[in-house]
Amino acid sequence: MDRELARQWLSTALDEARTGLAEGGIPIGAALYGPDGGLLGRGHNRRVQDDDPSLHAETAAFRAAGRRRSYRDTTMVTTLSPCWYCSGLVRQFGIPRVVVGEAETFSGAHGWLAAHGVEVVVLDDPECTELMREFISGRPDLWYEDIGSEDTGHDA
Amino acid sequence: MDRELARQWLSTALDEARTGLAEGGIPIGAALYGPDGGLLGRGHNRRVQDDDPSLHAETAAFRAAGRRRSYRDTTMVTTLSPCWYCSGLVRQFGIPRVVVGEAETFSGAHGWLAAHGVEVVVLDDPECTELMREFISGRPDLWYEDIGSEDTGHDA
Repeated sequence: MDRELARQWLSTALDEARTGLAEGGIPIGAALYGPDGGLLGRGHNRRVQDDDPSLHAETAAFRAAGRRRSYRDTTMVTTLSPCWYCSGLVRQFGIPRVVVGEAETFSGAHGWLAAHGVEVVVLDDPECTELMREFISGRPDLWYEDIGSEDTGHDA
Repeated sequence: MDRELARQWLSTALDEARTGLAEGGIPIGAALYGPDGGLLGRGHNRRVQDDDPSLHAETAAFRAAGRRRSYRDTTMVTTLSPCWYCSGLVRQFGIPRVVVGEAETFSGAHGWLAAHGVEVVVLDDPECTELMREFISGRPDLWYEDIGSEDTGHDA
């Protein structure tokens, strides 16, 4: 896809990430876009805010988009490489395209999605990276809890 | 694990599935158990009831269990073979064991989990199978929507 358009869509996810941070939460945001560039749903990680471990940014955006008969013409946009949970969501529902803000602070399963035919665009966005880098450095406990890692140091 | 214990735990998930059916929903239930046999969370698919595509049975049970620092000593029990979304959840959070009621009406990613070191116990429970068989036959639209399949016939 066009990288300029991908960057535009990423700004929505980045807004969500910043909102999450301002709420005291984990700064990861996502948005689900339709074929015509219409926004279907947006959201951010809500582990802290709602005490809900099931709401990663991508699942929050998916939830916000409501029930749909098909996802074949949608794009999931997320500030961070999607973990197995969120990548499983993308694969199960046949979302054909994923825009990833950055995969430097955490490399999830975006490569696995690409290997299974999903178009993956990694934007290496410095704002996304900086947001996560600062957060992980300041609150490693929350971050490692969010990805189910027993480490609190450097395992991701 | 002991199959009798697995069957006991499955009865909780099956209760959830029946509750979901009685509510007009998709009859899939799940429960997350702790190491001592303590029930951490239980839930059922809530697509219809809450208009929420993100709540599969397993994610509902995971959500109900609340925030945890580790899942290394837990078991996910589900009436039906977990889809990619729910299998991704299991893998990301390091849930080491999954009890599956049946994998006949839908074969999800339980084999993938087993290949990645998860202990998978498939119970071939006739009640679980019958519940899904009748449901899929009566409401194929809902079922195929729930697994993101554009088919409404026989693709799973």
